[in-house]
Amino acid sequence: MNEWLTDAYQIEQWTRFELRLQGPASGNPYRDIRLAAHFRHRNRVLEVDGFYDGDGQYCVRFMPDTQGIWTFETISNAPELNGIKGTLNCTEPAPGNHGPVCVDRIYHFAYADGTPFYPVGTTAYVWHHQGEELENQTLNSLANSPFNKIRMCVFPKHYDYNHKEPAFYPFQGSPEEGWDFDSFNPAFWRHLERRIQDLLDLGIEADLILFHPYDRWGFASMSAETDDFYLRYAIARLSSFRNIWWSLANEYDLMSSKSSKDWDRFFRILLECDPYQHLRSIHNWHNPEIHYRSNLHWYDHGKPWVTHASIQHHDLKFVREWRELYRKPIVVDECRYEGDMNHGWGNITAERMTECFWEGFTQGGYVTHGETYLHSDDVIWWSHGGTLRGDSPGRIRFLRKLMEEGPRLDTSSINFKWDAFVGCAEGEYYLVYFGASRPSYRVLPLPEGNRYTIDLIDTWEMTVTRLEGEYGHNSRVNLPAKPYQALRIMKLNEGEEKA
Amino acid sequence: MNEWLTDAYQIEQWTRFELRLQGPASGNPYRDIRLAAHFRHRNRVLEVDGFYDGDGQYCVRFMPDTQGIWTFETISNAPELNGIKGTLNCTEPAPGNHGPVCVDRIYHFAYADGTPFYPVGTTAYVWHHQGEELENQTLNSLANSPFNKIRMCVFPKHYDYNHKEPAFYPFQGSPEEGWDFDSFNPAFWRHLERRIQDLLDLGIEADLILFHPYDRWGFASMSAETDDFYLRYAIARLSSFRNIWWSLANEYDLMSSKSSKDWDRFFRILLECDPYQHLRSIHNWHNPEIHYRSNLHWYDHGKPWVTHASIQHHDLKFVREWRELYRKPIVVDECRYEGDMNHGWGNITAERMTECFWEGFTQGGYVTHGETYLHSDDVIWWSHGGTLRGDSPGRIRFLRKLMEEGPRLDTSSINFKWDAFVGCAEGEYYLVYFGASRPSYRVLPLPEGNRYTIDLIDTWEMTVTRLEGEYGHNSRVNLPAKPYQALRIMKLNEGEEKA
Repeated sequence: MNEWLTDAYQIEQWTRFELRLQGPASGNPYRDIRLAAHFRHRNRVLEVDGFYDGDGQYCVRFMPDTQGIWTFETISNAPELNGIKGTLNCTEPAPGNHGPVCVDRIYHFAYADGTPFYPVGTTAYVWHHQGEELENQTLNSLANSPFNKIRMCVFPKHYDYNHKEPAFYPFQGSPEEGWDFDSFNPAFWRHLERRIQDLLDLGIEADLILFHPYDRWGFASMSAETDDFYLRYAIARLSSFRNIWWSLANEYDLMSSKSSKDWDRFFRILLECDPYQHLRSIHNWHNPEIHYRSNLHWYDHGKPWVTHASIQHHDLKFVREWRELYRKPIVVDECRYEGDMNHGWGNITAERMTECFWEGFTQGGYVTHGETYLHSDDVIWWSHGGTLRGDSPGRIRFLRKLMEEGPRLDTSSINFKWDAFVGCAEGEYYLVYFGASRPSYRVLPLPEGNRYTIDLIDTWEMTVTRLEGEYGHNSRVNLPAKPYQALRIMKLNEGEEKA
Repeated sequence: MNEWLTDAYQIEQWTRFELRLQGPASGNPYRDIRLAAHFRHRNRVLEVDGFYDGDGQYCVRFMPDTQGIWTFETISNAPELNGIKGTLNCTEPAPGNHGPVCVDRIYHFAYADGTPFYPVGTTAYVWHHQGEELENQTLNSLANSPFNKIRMCVFPKHYDYNHKEPAFYPFQGSPEEGWDFDSFNPAFWRHLERRIQDLLDLGIEADLILFHPYDRWGFASMSAETDDFYLRYAIARLSSFRNIWWSLANEYDLMSSKSSKDWDRFFRILLECDPYQHLRSIHNWHNPEIHYRSNLHWYDHGKPWVTHASIQHHDLKFVREWRELYRKPIVVDECRYEGDMNHGWGNITAERMTECFWEGFTQGGYVTHGETYLHSDDVIWWSHGGTLRGDSPGRIRFLRKLMEEGPRLDTSSINFKWDAFVGCAEGEYYLVYFGASRPSYRVLPLPEGNRYTIDLIDTWEMTVTRLEGEYGHNSRVNLPAKPYQALRIMKLNEGEEKA
């Protein structure tokens, strides 16, 4: 190590470096003081915004994406915060740290180190607004779940079954006295950050929802200037967490006070201010099938700043079409929830939830879980977290394991018939899912010349049974004529015997 | 009775009068001899085509739709068939004879005497081409079934599981020697008529398919002139059966040799030649959801000669939209079949088949059953008839009884939420079906001011349970949080106590 590095901060790649500085506490530091830093590695410079953390504390956070020496220098209109310099030595990541998740192979995801990432998401919108006991229970449930992504809101939620006040609010003020939209509440943000770090420690991506319509406090209808102010502050505080995904909204099209120009502008702010270009999406409420008379359309996921389509839709058969339309990863971030709620979106069976996952995944898309069983304690996973009560997570775990054992799935040019959902690595690997259809046999139009082994998968009973013999073009395969069966078809290489 | 009526034929209203005449047997009577008759009741005259029945026999059939005295006189280019006169005394119908089925109240059906008709159809395309033993078994099965309409083809069928030769062919000739498309085979037609009469005796409507694509004999690709010749002959022979519905085709859009002009012309021939204006429809194969890339569209069911839309589609949620589009009765004459066949259209569960019926009916439409269980005897109900093996017919019988107990169902202006299918007589009667959704309770947006009783219906277990108490606007109703439940909501009249 060079001698001049003895003063360098040691920082693991894709973790968080935090520079804390004391500065002016008078006036309104959130508004008045500007702070940023340039982080330089060789000829590359990243400009990173800092933020005011209350009590005269200023902070710049940085997540280095490249190993080696980085130097930095702050820029500020406050003289005591300006021109502060330093050096980082970015070291190799610890085992299990694969970096942030990025788009990979057009329709899929991988960590920054190239490890494939298969999003297996769940939804607990305001689990981190529920107080220590319940929040810890949620983390414990997540640790024992198959989920590696969670949809959660920055703001608290007002809706049926969601009438309690949260412990923290993002702005200074109170529901009774109103909000000072010029000053943030650092305690709120520190708590949020702690929970995002808890997720990171569990290997779970935080699909963080920046705006949502279910509000009684005024956070859904702030001025455009406040929206932008909030967004920049959130980016400055949170973008150095490697497990952040930016979800601009849950059900953006129910937020009547915002126009599509607002959403465009928010995307541009993310594009401009997030030094790491975390994943960016926006999530709809309307869908053209159910609301066929409405003139509302989806936000155009084809716009260049949208990294993947985050879609609410109950009918997974469109995944293949959306892939072709947007040529981006398709994540169905709400397809109704397993449960027995009075609301239509929250009362599907575990069988149907599991079917949604299989339908989406075998079309080369991804699906997000949610659960809405009513319970005497009024704690419902979809919003509050707590305990998972449903029967789908076990099946989703089984599917996740199969996903991770196989290649990333794309569309086949072979027509396996419309009642089957099929994902493949063409020629090499096919996953054929029959869902609620239940043929007693099938003739498989596999490519000519190749030999395959076939596993019969009962997606509900979670069994994998190797079928006897080898299979090829137009082989007949007998099936048990019951719902929820799949076939995993793997090519035998030259000279290879079936296992 | 007037003295001049002593010679009159006595004929029950809506039954078949048959005038048989001996005429020329040389040449080709099918082509060369024209025969019709005018039937006059007061100032109304119906022109009815006759037909050659082989062996020098000519026949004119007539179904009087009005009681009282009818006179007739034949017209022919054969002198011995020309100018033959007679008188009919049309008497009142026997119990159970309600006349032919017509469109009623825009979206529904009724017999000619005004009795509502709820089509509860099944499908056995060529059951009457299977020989005496199996055909009698089919009739026996139908007699013990809930079905009051059957889809069946004039022509034999060639397809998977359908490779046997039929007992009769419609034209003179043989598969080996080819067909004389100028001469019909009366034995074929007499057999068909016998089977249509058997259905009539069981109170079952024959939804008779005049063309279909599954053919190895050439009947799907005859010349336009032969098509018309065949159609006129079929009308002359069959239209006097009061239980006839004309289905121009099964899957017309798979018949590549016919254009939409041909189908228009066929409809016009039915319009012109059928004196009784039996119901007329045409049935598709493509659907815009599955075949979204195809440029094919449905035949326009809005055309004036189409009496009702006969639709193949697996997704019943569109019924309401189709009603509004066509403003005609919607009959989903194929929504996949209960069974375990290798083909995707033939492997749904009994639960799903039952769900289709409920979804269609509660939207004010009608649904047709089919069954495709593979069996060692290779007799499959969908095509051959035989024995019903599935679990949906019992549930369909239960639904039919509920239908017949209630009013005809139309669309409600109340939004019961999108996971519920709702049919109503607005204000008076609501049937709310939750399908595979399973809320544990619902708040019902019933009209203000009215009081209702509610029956909880388990559509699968076939139970009806009167719920305690009276219900009104925004009443909460507890549900068992399991799939396939429905609510029957009936208005209490002034002063009426709940039963």
